Amino acid sequence: MGIEIERKFLVTGDGWRAAAHAVVPMAQGYLNDAASIETGAQKASVRVRIEGEAAFLNIKSRDAGTTRQEFELPLSMDDAKALLELCVGGRVEKRRHLVRHAGHLWEVDEFLGDNAGLVVAEIELDDPEETFAHPDWLGAEVTAQTRYFNLALAARPFSSWDAAERG
Amino acid sequence: MGIEIERKFLVTGDGWRAAAHAVVPMAQGYLNDAASIETGAQKASVRVRIEGEAAFLNIKSRDAGTTRQEFELPLSMDDAKALLELCVGGRVEKRRHLVRHAGHLWEVDEFLGDNAGLVVAEIELDDPEETFAHPDWLGAEVTAQTRYFNLALAARPFSSWDAAERG
Repeated sequence: MGIEIERKFLVTGDGWRAAAHAVVPMAQGYLNDAASIETGAQKASVRVRIEGEAAFLNIKSRDAGTTRQEFELPLSMDDAKALLELCVGGRVEKRRHLVRHAGHLWEVDEFLGDNAGLVVAEIELDDPEETFAHPDWLGAEVTAQTRYFNLALAARPFSSWDAAERG
Repeated sequence: MGIEIERKFLVTGDGWRAAAHAVVPMAQGYLNDAASIETGAQKASVRVRIEGEAAFLNIKSRDAGTTRQEFELPLSMDDAKALLELCVGGRVEKRRHLVRHAGHLWEVDEFLGDNAGLVVAEIELDDPEETFAHPDWLGAEVTAQTRYFNLALAARPFSSWDAAERG
């Protein structure tokens, strides 16, 4: 179990592409439905993720905000594929680009499928107060906005958002 | 991933006790709520179980009936304890007694806490049509009765059942 401190931002423009040193294709789904988290009927999301050649089950406590408990359990590829079939809501597919900037590692997620057009950048911090340089392609922070949670994107993808929601 | 073929029965009397060759204390909870399974909002239950000195995360597809997909992932004891705190509904505690009878292994679950008074026996089969000897302490079959699912017992324990439900 780890405590995860993550901040999430929108991405503006393509300036990050030239700086990306790796890309990992990802497909993921959730065994629980988004509504159960929103209503508080469940306290944790359970995600199945295929990440390049690896696969994991990830459990995250769903306190809104930046600090959450996270558990990661390795899966065989066969189990991961079978578990993806047991997921509810849509499947979220994206390309994760790794971008190093001023000593920090950014994960720039370029969504595909029903979420195409959405690009967000995440940074993992050791401390909630830690400062970091903002690259010039970084837009508004959306850490606490639940519609950007991958769990929410599975149920209600970016393609269904109205103009106001897209910011 | 395995396909699990299990049949579950009520237990009448204490005749099984003398034949039990092992007992394992168990505590378990579910990360998902029972309602999400009953309504079909989710296709799988996610269980955290401490079983003696070991701990597991178990995912079961929830097609009613005897054949289900089951996935078992080992957990550290620390992770298991933290995950039990993220469970919803009540915690199910029981003593599992292992009883060999006529070449088959029975798991006799003696429930504790809010489910005290309930004793059920499960047998795992290689084939849905496989025959097996019925020990004389075996009562009515309840395989398909959802109120006996551990997931249901977490939300609505035996102590809350009326006389008709207790059979």
